[in-house]
Amino acid sequence: MLRRATRLSPRVNGQRLNGWMSAIGEFGKNPQGGVTRVAYTDADVAARAYAMQLMRDAKLSVSVDAAGNIFGKRAGVDPSAKPIIFGSHVDSVPEGGNFDGNVGTLGAIEVARTLGEQNIGTKHPLWVVCWQNEEGGTWGSHLVTSDPTPVELTTMSQSGKRIADGVRFIGGTPDNIAAARLRRGDAHGYLELHIEQGGTLERERRDVGVVEGIVALGQWDVTIDGFANHAGTTAMGERHDALLSAARFTDMVNRVVTAEPGGQVGTVGRIQAFPGARNVVPGKAICALELRDLEDRKVQRLYDVIVAESRKIGAMNGTTFAFQHVITHESARCDERVRSLIGASATSLGFSTRSLPSGAGHDAQNMARVCPMGMIFIPSVGGISHSPKEYSRPQDITNGADVLLGAVLAMDAAQF
Amino acid sequence: MLRRATRLSPRVNGQRLNGWMSAIGEFGKNPQGGVTRVAYTDADVAARAYAMQLMRDAKLSVSVDAAGNIFGKRAGVDPSAKPIIFGSHVDSVPEGGNFDGNVGTLGAIEVARTLGEQNIGTKHPLWVVCWQNEEGGTWGSHLVTSDPTPVELTTMSQSGKRIADGVRFIGGTPDNIAAARLRRGDAHGYLELHIEQGGTLERERRDVGVVEGIVALGQWDVTIDGFANHAGTTAMGERHDALLSAARFTDMVNRVVTAEPGGQVGTVGRIQAFPGARNVVPGKAICALELRDLEDRKVQRLYDVIVAESRKIGAMNGTTFAFQHVITHESARCDERVRSLIGASATSLGFSTRSLPSGAGHDAQNMARVCPMGMIFIPSVGGISHSPKEYSRPQDITNGADVLLGAVLAMDAAQF
Repeated sequence: MLRRATRLSPRVNGQRLNGWMSAIGEFGKNPQGGVTRVAYTDADVAARAYAMQLMRDAKLSVSVDAAGNIFGKRAGVDPSAKPIIFGSHVDSVPEGGNFDGNVGTLGAIEVARTLGEQNIGTKHPLWVVCWQNEEGGTWGSHLVTSDPTPVELTTMSQSGKRIADGVRFIGGTPDNIAAARLRRGDAHGYLELHIEQGGTLERERRDVGVVEGIVALGQWDVTIDGFANHAGTTAMGERHDALLSAARFTDMVNRVVTAEPGGQVGTVGRIQAFPGARNVVPGKAICALELRDLEDRKVQRLYDVIVAESRKIGAMNGTTFAFQHVITHESARCDERVRSLIGASATSLGFSTRSLPSGAGHDAQNMARVCPMGMIFIPSVGGISHSPKEYSRPQDITNGADVLLGAVLAMDAAQF
Repeated sequence: MLRRATRLSPRVNGQRLNGWMSAIGEFGKNPQGGVTRVAYTDADVAARAYAMQLMRDAKLSVSVDAAGNIFGKRAGVDPSAKPIIFGSHVDSVPEGGNFDGNVGTLGAIEVARTLGEQNIGTKHPLWVVCWQNEEGGTWGSHLVTSDPTPVELTTMSQSGKRIADGVRFIGGTPDNIAAARLRRGDAHGYLELHIEQGGTLERERRDVGVVEGIVALGQWDVTIDGFANHAGTTAMGERHDALLSAARFTDMVNRVVTAEPGGQVGTVGRIQAFPGARNVVPGKAICALELRDLEDRKVQRLYDVIVAESRKIGAMNGTTFAFQHVITHESARCDERVRSLIGASATSLGFSTRSLPSGAGHDAQNMARVCPMGMIFIPSVGGISHSPKEYSRPQDITNGADVLLGAVLAMDAAQF
């Protein structure tokens, strides 16, 4: 007979969970550490098969939706109640780590397994999810929370397969993608456990992060036109050096972004110079600019300042700046009530907490369009991610799964 | 019967010379203007054949030396006198112009043709030269003024051929390269007419430049090591952004080079960021640095300042700088006496002159090791070269050849 959770919180089996973490790290393992488990590759399929087996072992009913996402479902007591969805992903960036995504997916399966073992029933159905191709741009959650166009499905992915072909490769049915659609109200709530990928929790010695929201992101290509000329014969005062302007631009972006308090970040990740020869004054340069902040308005405001400052830089040496918009992601706020129950779950377990934004994108940002959403972060050692050096301690992984377990049960009891 | 030059200076046939200039522009002509006539390609061979035909038309005795250089020789009156060598090159950079090199080569042939037509004899033999592969690094003059190692001859050239194969392709005999050796004292003097490739003469409205010397050049690869991390999750204060340091380095190089008066130039022609992704804080950057000045010591001093300043930049965000030496060319001073007779030739023709350094390398810098050397510059419109927009006016080309003619005759009369 199923019993309801008591005030004495149930705990996950941390040893088992960390064993799974080691085991999944074999799929796409790199000699230098970490994994390359790009979505729609054999390593991705192998890791997904492993996750499905763990779901079955946890007595979940496993299915792959039309968009290629894996769901492990467990019935609730109330037949009219909407599901609580929680999970993450198992794909990685090229030469990435074994913690980004895996912690949240395997942590969610461990929560379901613990509830099953302890015969703890819930009012709401529980759906453990493993989203497909998160690293390529949260594709799995995007496809089920929007109405993708056929053209979108032809986007080339990192694997070399187009999205539709990739979805088919992992067992989805891209021609019937609408069957997987989740609309507002289709779920009671969404929870995602994840590594922080930054150094805030470690630096401030906090056990658990309660995520405020996922930052807004803007990306632009900045093209600077000058005039290419001989680097030996063109006097310094006669130059229209596009790379010099790109350099001043890069320094200025850093200055503008750090000029005020807050968690905003700004990055120039690449500068291409043309012709790019050692003995030619560059006549053209292209910079890749990215700005992120929890406030969409701040991203826009910083961008406006950067555009204005770049005009001054161009005027210094007769170069011109042109900004081409690449992408904008609006910020996704975590639901206040979900943040509150995550915080309460952590506190009741004796963990120190901190509220913080997520600087990285997550499937949770898409699920915010469907239901109240929240995220739990655990510390990343050294703040490193998307790297073979990505690491989170076993105890922190266990802690995160325990907080998730408490939050699932609290969400089950909550009236949203 | 040959006659000696009179005080009334002979003049070249400018119309003929400029007709040749147009004709040679057909070899490797680009649709967008200018030429691509890279050494050791079919276009190069075609332009060389044209130059050889012009030499024969000028009644010069044509030969190709072991290093692939073309000589058009005319006997002197004094059998013991050393030759006066003058000329330039006909190869170009990819997508270059039709004036760099051609003006000096065809101008030299026109001088010889004029002397022949006017029956003007000289004491010294006259050797009109067309050096091979100037743009790849003054290879033709280098090979005959040094003792190249077999390894050097395996250097890959822009054409895709190794130097030895390229020399063979254009009619040289690379296995017998020592036969072409020119040693100190083997020539009476060397003269080279060339376009300025900078904007000084045009800006100051001078007809002719009397070159002071060819600048010293130093090139380095500057590798900056930081730490790659997620651009969304890594707080600004936690970053070791190698590209930000590269940007500050590039701005600093400009500041250091322009901080004092003089003709020194400093260029960062390329910055490569690693991994170079839009959403990753760059962990590594490589900058291509080049410094030039007429004073070797100034190049070294500026470099020392740049190295010291880079340490401060690295300390700002925990990045490190490493400088790898690529190449050093020592400066080559033009002979004072040759400068003087070039200036006198120009002045006697009514041209305004200006002394100036050559920021670009030329075959003349190698010939300075053999004999007294001087160079004549004519204006480059807009100071542009190594570009389809490279242009020098027909009148300036004629003027330059007239100055060369006078300088050859004055050198013939001079006791060095």
